[in-house]
Amino acid sequence: MAIKLGPNEYGKAQVHLVRVYRDTDRHEIRDFTVSTSLRGDFSDAHIDGDQAAVLPTDTQKNTVFAFAKEKGIESPEQFALELADHFLEAAPVADGARIEIEETNWNRITVDGKGHDHSFVQSGGGNRTTVVNVDGRGADRKAHVVSGLNDLVVLKSTGSEFHGFLKDKYTTLAEADDRILATSLIVRWRYEGTDVDWNKTFDAAKATLLQRFAEIHSKALQQSLYGMGETLLEQHPEIAEFKFSAPNKHHFLVDLSPFGVENPNEVFYAADRPFGLIEGTVIRDDSSDPGNAWHSVPGFC
Amino acid sequence: MAIKLGPNEYGKAQVHLVRVYRDTDRHEIRDFTVSTSLRGDFSDAHIDGDQAAVLPTDTQKNTVFAFAKEKGIESPEQFALELADHFLEAAPVADGARIEIEETNWNRITVDGKGHDHSFVQSGGGNRTTVVNVDGRGADRKAHVVSGLNDLVVLKSTGSEFHGFLKDKYTTLAEADDRILATSLIVRWRYEGTDVDWNKTFDAAKATLLQRFAEIHSKALQQSLYGMGETLLEQHPEIAEFKFSAPNKHHFLVDLSPFGVENPNEVFYAADRPFGLIEGTVIRDDSSDPGNAWHSVPGFC
Amino acid sequence: MAIKLGPNEYGKAQVHLVRVYRDTDRHEIRDFTVSTSLRGDFSDAHIDGDQAAVLPTDTQKNTVFAFAKEKGIESPEQFALELADHFLEAAPVADGARIEIEETNWNRITVDGKGHDHSFVQSGGGNRTTVVNVDGRGADRKAHVVSGLNDLVVLKSTGSEFHGFLKDKYTTLAEADDRILATSLIVRWRYEGTDVDWNKTFDAAKATLLQRFAEIHSKALQQSLYGMGETLLEQHPEIAEFKFSAPNKHHFLVDLSPFGVENPNEVFYAADRPFGLIEGTVIRDDSSDPGNAWHSVPGFC
Amino acid sequence: MAIKLGPNEYGKAQVHLVRVYRDTDRHEIRDFTVSTSLRGDFSDAHIDGDQAAVLPTDTQKNTVFAFAKEKGIESPEQFALELADHFLEAAPVADGARIEIEETNWNRITVDGKGHDHSFVQSGGGNRTTVVNVDGRGADRKAHVVSGLNDLVVLKSTGSEFHGFLKDKYTTLAEADDRILATSLIVRWRYEGTDVDWNKTFDAAKATLLQRFAEIHSKALQQSLYGMGETLLEQHPEIAEFKFSAPNKHHFLVDLSPFGVENPNEVFYAADRPFGLIEGTVIRDDSSDPGNAWHSVPGFC
Repeated sequence: MAIKLGPNEYGKAQVHLVRVYRDTDRHEIRDFTVSTSLRGDFSDAHIDGDQAAVLPTDTQKNTVFAFAKEKGIESPEQFALELADHFLEAAPVADGARIEIEETNWNRITVDGKGHDHSFVQSGGGNRTTVVNVDGRGADRKAHVVSGLNDLVVLKSTGSEFHGFLKDKYTTLAEADDRILATSLIVRWRYEGTDVDWNKTFDAAKATLLQRFAEIHSKALQQSLYGMGETLLEQHPEIAEFKFSAPNKHHFLVDLSPFGVENPNEVFYAADRPFGLIEGTVIRDDSSDPGNAWHSVPGFC
Repeated sequence: MAIKLGPNEYGKAQVHLVRVYRDTDRHEIRDFTVSTSLRGDFSDAHIDGDQAAVLPTDTQKNTVFAFAKEKGIESPEQFALELADHFLEAAPVADGARIEIEETNWNRITVDGKGHDHSFVQSGGGNRTTVVNVDGRGADRKAHVVSGLNDLVVLKSTGSEFHGFLKDKYTTLAEADDRILATSLIVRWRYEGTDVDWNKTFDAAKATLLQRFAEIHSKALQQSLYGMGETLLEQHPEIAEFKFSAPNKHHFLVDLSPFGVENPNEVFYAADRPFGLIEGTVIRDDSSDPGNAWHSVPGFC
Repeated sequence: MAIKLGPNEYGKAQVHLVRVYRDTDRHEIRDFTVSTSLRGDFSDAHIDGDQAAVLPTDTQKNTVFAFAKEKGIESPEQFALELADHFLEAAPVADGARIEIEETNWNRITVDGKGHDHSFVQSGGGNRTTVVNVDGRGADRKAHVVSGLNDLVVLKSTGSEFHGFLKDKYTTLAEADDRILATSLIVRWRYEGTDVDWNKTFDAAKATLLQRFAEIHSKALQQSLYGMGETLLEQHPEIAEFKFSAPNKHHFLVDLSPFGVENPNEVFYAADRPFGLIEGTVIRDDSSDPGNAWHSVPGFC
Repeated sequence: MAIKLGPNEYGKAQVHLVRVYRDTDRHEIRDFTVSTSLRGDFSDAHIDGDQAAVLPTDTQKNTVFAFAKEKGIESPEQFALELADHFLEAAPVADGARIEIEETNWNRITVDGKGHDHSFVQSGGGNRTTVVNVDGRGADRKAHVVSGLNDLVVLKSTGSEFHGFLKDKYTTLAEADDRILATSLIVRWRYEGTDVDWNKTFDAAKATLLQRFAEIHSKALQQSLYGMGETLLEQHPEIAEFKFSAPNKHHFLVDLSPFGVENPNEVFYAADRPFGLIEGTVIRDDSSDPGNAWHSVPGFC
């Protein structure tokens, strides 16, 4: 029997970078939380404690800040691709690099009906995110981009049912013709390549997902999520695959009858735990091999 | 020496209520997290374990749900006042009641350029909140309303300085002529009475606070916050007092000079901890005695 | 009408300090999260933006680190008192200082049955905390020490009942002769003076509170908490007052009868929200005026 | 082009179950947070909204509670295996089931030097966890058990260095001969089979990991983690593979020289973000094919 090093990865997690563009009096800001990592045969570091091949995570952090100025930030995807390629050059033992970015949203503060030049308010409504994996260099380089949204919380106050399900001796759930449907969407989509207008595609994808959630009369959360992904793939040939991880945020109708009060789907208790958790994939028949595209993308089956 | 019961309070915390108004096909929703409590001489319950005077917290929770239907929800302030008065009737030993409500914001999802009838997306931008304290009943009743905002995150990319401060042997901070100023506002204002258009005043107050944060050229976070409160009091005679609790969310300029890169206020590291914490009060000379208005309002000096 | 500055306070929150004592090979560590603040008439800073009287929060942070070496750390209380007095000297405009410390617990890792010299594992079981408020200097100095515990989670699987409570039309709760009682204790006690063996008293107080929680047959969470405080005051004449803020962490008996399964108090669902919240005070008849002792102690009525 | 359903999974997350054993006056309690899920070809539910094959997540929750009584709880692993097999019987369309359990630790409260019969205090020190995946039924059944620990926070105040690392133009980190090493361990080990004394093996594994962390003179966090896993595999032939995901919780030596104070590795600032993140695998040459063992085990490369 011999014991050896298997898959491994190391890097700096959650470098919180705020970049201000101040070329004119009307500033722009981007707020990125960046995690970087390298993988490969780092046996010497693990087994002998020899760090000669290890680019420190502190250096990775420094590079994130320096690149924010040297390379600029057009989109999370472009910035992540530049970092990944750089780290593979800087650390010859690495055979792959992974960059994850989550963007926090800021809107201009309204003053006298106009957006202010340099004052901003943080908005919610789901954070944009990307995970980029690059394997190899030069002719062997393969770049994978998976983008998406975290924590986009949506709710339908009607237009949702759930019935006709499988029953066994432990089933007590009543069938529902009209219920609240709510979820906090975590979604990711895999791009076929990297020749993409990242910002435009992201904006269109987010709008499509929201619109379809609203439009689809839901027979189950699964069906809504599948339908949202199906439309996304139909509209975006540059997207190969769509994955979702969506808690079913239960809203229970409160029984007010002990108090002589009717409750025709008006008063709900919003529960925290436990919650349903629905994960799935919508994919094209002819999509390319994902390779390492989904490597260490958190939270998906 | 004798040992006795001092100030005490009990209730149900964080009842998460979602109320749907479905009188027409265009639904409205309100999302309230409600905490209720009663105070008074509950010595028997504490010392002898005699519950005869104790209205259970479970009953308090039931009442929140029932009142959402029976009384309806026009504003957090109106709903909290109705609950407080009710609990003082229901529990004769209590001499005061406290209701805290935090409202989660929902916007309609946009479909073909219009807000959808029954589909919503949760937005950020600071949650509305109120703490209502009512003492006594009938002729002796005193009602106090303190409303405000939680977690309204704002940032200025310029228009902020900090210099001329007191120095001692432990001071290393450099003076700054131009820095990022950012905070996550927790603010509260105390109303003089209860004859107020709660929703209209809240909307105006939020807009004023944001606008003044943007407009004020800041010599320190204290000065911005005071100025915001001053304008609020000037515009709203119905408001007696304004309190703030605001972390100074430090954005440190990254030193890129080791890499031969200039950084003219463009690349920042956004730190989590430690943070400055600025708390204060802006108050009218002639404001009324607050009484129990600030009883158990969390997080203020 | 004039508008003015009211109560205010500023400082550095959550300075995370780890102090290693390495005088011998057997190291000791202390892990403190320290928040400091100053209060007084800082009108110039708020109204005019004049910082001449303001000792920066960055300097406060530096001082915490320097004092960890210069003064040493015997207890949270001693360290907080030294910091408070120092800041009042350093900032002449301040009339009061507040220091809050929360200590994280570390135990030695066991190797071959003995505690290791320099390797530690973080333990739970409730964090020690103190809030020190000092007003004035020299002959006018008044120092207040309030110490306690955060998040000490305890549970009784029997020996707890709840019945005989007040009922109204919204009451549906069944009376309980035997239930699980669980809470996450936040407790604070006020010392009469500062001539106290801080570490010894803390250890004794924690042991007493746990023992009494176990021993008291509970007719309600209020009664358990009052009884715990009563014993604490009886045993410790140096303690003037005891306050608690305790969520009733509901454990609901699951109804297994639909599946033909009995559940004689064996299977429970542990709920998160809503929860009961019980706050109260046990105090001596003849205790001293608390003055500013409870100034900005978070979470108590 | 056709669009289809890819990998998917659904279930109930975070069912918080507390089981009391009260066969004698000396009670035992187990505190499990259980997540269940099923996978397979659920195309009808996703595409047509037909729920005929879907065992509701509510039923899964009911089953967890019922099994706590019907089957009993000897260990997280045994309970998870029973649930997984049951759900595969109950839902014929499923081809796999996944059960994740995290156990919260409780110790008896000490009263007069002895552990109390029915009063407990929650302890920290890392939560036990398991993820069980079962594929198929009867002769085709394959069961995979991955167990481990979450959030076991450990620290060495000396015996840790980091030098000789790769440098590039963005490297500013100084080499360190003596530093604090700290991490919050998330570790998992894969069992070769299911004929294991689960509780005994867990206790032994936890003790070994802690002891080795203490003993190993660390040239890097990677080396400590690899060494811990190597010893685990050497001591436990029933374990095939060990994975870790460990933040490097940076403790920065504070520069006190501006204040004329020396700091010989005594005063540290404990930072939150960013942090290093070290993930890796220690595996036997001859270990079996993991199959679906690592399916949806959160947080590992």
